[in-house]
Amino acid sequence: MRSPAILDSTLREGEQFIKTFFTLEQRLNIARLLDQIGVTFIEVPSPIASPETREAVQAICDLHLKSHVVAHVRCAEADVQAALETDVYGLNLFFGTSTELRSFSHGRGIEQIAHEAVPLIRRIREAGRYVRFSAEDAFRSDLVDLLTVFDAVVDAGVERIGLPDTVGIATPRQVDRLVSLIASRYPQVGIEFHGHNDTGCAIANTIAAYEAGADCLDVTVMGIGERNGIASLSGIISQLYIHHPDQLATYDVTRLVELDQYVADSLNITIPYNMPITAPNAFTHRAGVHTKAVLRNPNAYEILNPTDFGIVRHVDVGSRFTGRYAVG
Amino acid sequence: MRSPAILDSTLREGEQFIKTFFTLEQRLNIARLLDQIGVTFIEVPSPIASPETREAVQAICDLHLKSHVVAHVRCAEADVQAALETDVYGLNLFFGTSTELRSFSHGRGIEQIAHEAVPLIRRIREAGRYVRFSAEDAFRSDLVDLLTVFDAVVDAGVERIGLPDTVGIATPRQVDRLVSLIASRYPQVGIEFHGHNDTGCAIANTIAAYEAGADCLDVTVMGIGERNGIASLSGIISQLYIHHPDQLATYDVTRLVELDQYVADSLNITIPYNMPITAPNAFTHRAGVHTKAVLRNPNAYEILNPTDFGIVRHVDVGSRFTGRYAVG
Ligand SMILES: O=C(O)CCC(=O)C(=O)O
Ligand SMILES: O=C(O)CCC(=O)C(=O)O
Ligand SMILES: [Cu+2]
Ligand SMILES: [Cu+2]
Repeated sequence: MRSPAILDSTLREGEQFIKTFFTLEQRLNIARLLDQIGVTFIEVPSPIASPETREAVQAICDLHLKSHVVAHVRCAEADVQAALETDVYGLNLFFGTSTELRSFSHGRGIEQIAHEAVPLIRRIREAGRYVRFSAEDAFRSDLVDLLTVFDAVVDAGVERIGLPDTVGIATPRQVDRLVSLIASRYPQVGIEFHGHNDTGCAIANTIAAYEAGADCLDVTVMGIGERNGIASLSGIISQLYIHHPDQLATYDVTRLVELDQYVADSLNITIPYNMPITAPNAFTHRAGVHTKAVLRNPNAYEILNPTDFGIVRHVDVGSRFTGRYAVG
Repeated sequence: MRSPAILDSTLREGEQFIKTFFTLEQRLNIARLLDQIGVTFIEVPSPIASPETREAVQAICDLHLKSHVVAHVRCAEADVQAALETDVYGLNLFFGTSTELRSFSHGRGIEQIAHEAVPLIRRIREAGRYVRFSAEDAFRSDLVDLLTVFDAVVDAGVERIGLPDTVGIATPRQVDRLVSLIASRYPQVGIEFHGHNDTGCAIANTIAAYEAGADCLDVTVMGIGERNGIASLSGIISQLYIHHPDQLATYDVTRLVELDQYVADSLNITIPYNMPITAPNAFTHRAGVHTKAVLRNPNAYEILNPTDFGIVRHVDVGSRFTGRYAVG
């Protein structure tokens, strides 16, 4: 299986979360922590959005991190131009290909989408930058439409194509099918997956995409994003740790809690109790049968070793569940 | 596909969440709301746990709800006896069958487990109650061990067998395989699934179990439970709504937000932003391309219709993402 690149979009998708208003300093600190943990890509907003965004993007580039900084950019001349005027490593282009987005977002037909994307991709390649093209709302797009657009952008020299589940409708099985099909049709390019969590399957779908051939997985810190968000960095790390541990060799997962806590503090929230690894209670055992066994051997009720993440286990021996009658 | 029974375990698994200390009144209100929404089973703790637990269990039975009240009970004589002395509809027995739990929890061999469970199952059936037997930590259990125990309990007249992913290690594909195998071997009994969220796949696994033949799906309100919890009621409802809408005919999903809010208030937390349907921001649109399209047609970026859940959509037109340069 190909080694997965992790793309963290906390500074782009995460900025679409209703509670997010990062300062420049927070953005820089988040980028630094992501780099220290070892993500391959850090996605940032389109520099054309505002002068402030442009400056923030350039400031992140100026950190000269190992992680590649990629700007999330509409397929529009001026937007691409503005991104090329910064020092970003590459551009992540996107265009809605579903009937819903074609009708209610941009109003373009499929041929028109390909027609607009192709020259921009050529131009970005000529500028010596990395370029990805993503079919927004891929899982509600007609297969012929998807393949028509992808044929054109792959031909134009795109380096990776993206299959976002923009509305969170896909199941792991559907992800497996579509990614496998796309991976076998376009072996010459990478495949990126981006999964929203509207029906609670963002993490499962993202791992299904990886196992079907995707080589770039989108996440955000704590899964923050539009509506109820996307796959969380800690969720994907927990999956790789259990099912593909070799793929974590280049990551420093001991910084994960620090990163989640930093973003939570920046948003003025607590890390949700359901977060894999980083929830304050992720390694807390309470029921009597659990605590007794865990004190003998943590393996009994733990598959992730908290010390690998620099975390201390908590066995709640003081609760009403662990007294003489403890049976929970 | 069989109609799935939903078993809500907020009053049992949910009580194992580190923040949970429900009062009797809260337990009764939660049970009433679960009944109004239409869950088939309400799981409660073992009455032997404490006199207070016993009284709470009986008080819930005394509500005479349509939902069936089932007690979660160890395979021990005294525990079964205590449960039979209440008016519970049935008993959910469990016994750890993995090497980890056999070694570090109870120390019994597989033959011994079957030997202890069988007479208890007969006794419960003779008492005219419903009985389920669950192989705790099924996904780390040896298949021969699992089948040995299940052969014995099915033979003894158990009505349903449970396959809990106690440590949250399973993938949707593994769930599909194990549930399919068990469903085809034991067509005469029901199959229950219970999925922990340690690696973020509780909802995906629970739906995979349903699609593979499970007919009883365990959830809690907001997914609260040991460590980082299990599948959430709202997550499973969102999945059924999208992929199996006929199965929701008997549910009143307009009470879901009220229930989640009530439990959140009882725990002194907010509903996490990543909760399907009930997160305060689940239907909030922020990025410029999103808000513009959603104002034209909500379908553009929404697959769940908030009004079906008694919720009002929020389009964040005041944010910095929706100004003149909005491109997010
Ligand atoms: O560009 C992409 O692949 C993802 C864009 C996005 O956030 C989405 O479609 O949900
Ligand atoms: O009895 C069951 O099926 C589930 C028990 C439990 O909470 C678990 O195994 O995680
Ligand atoms: Cu997105
Ligand atoms: Cu459990």
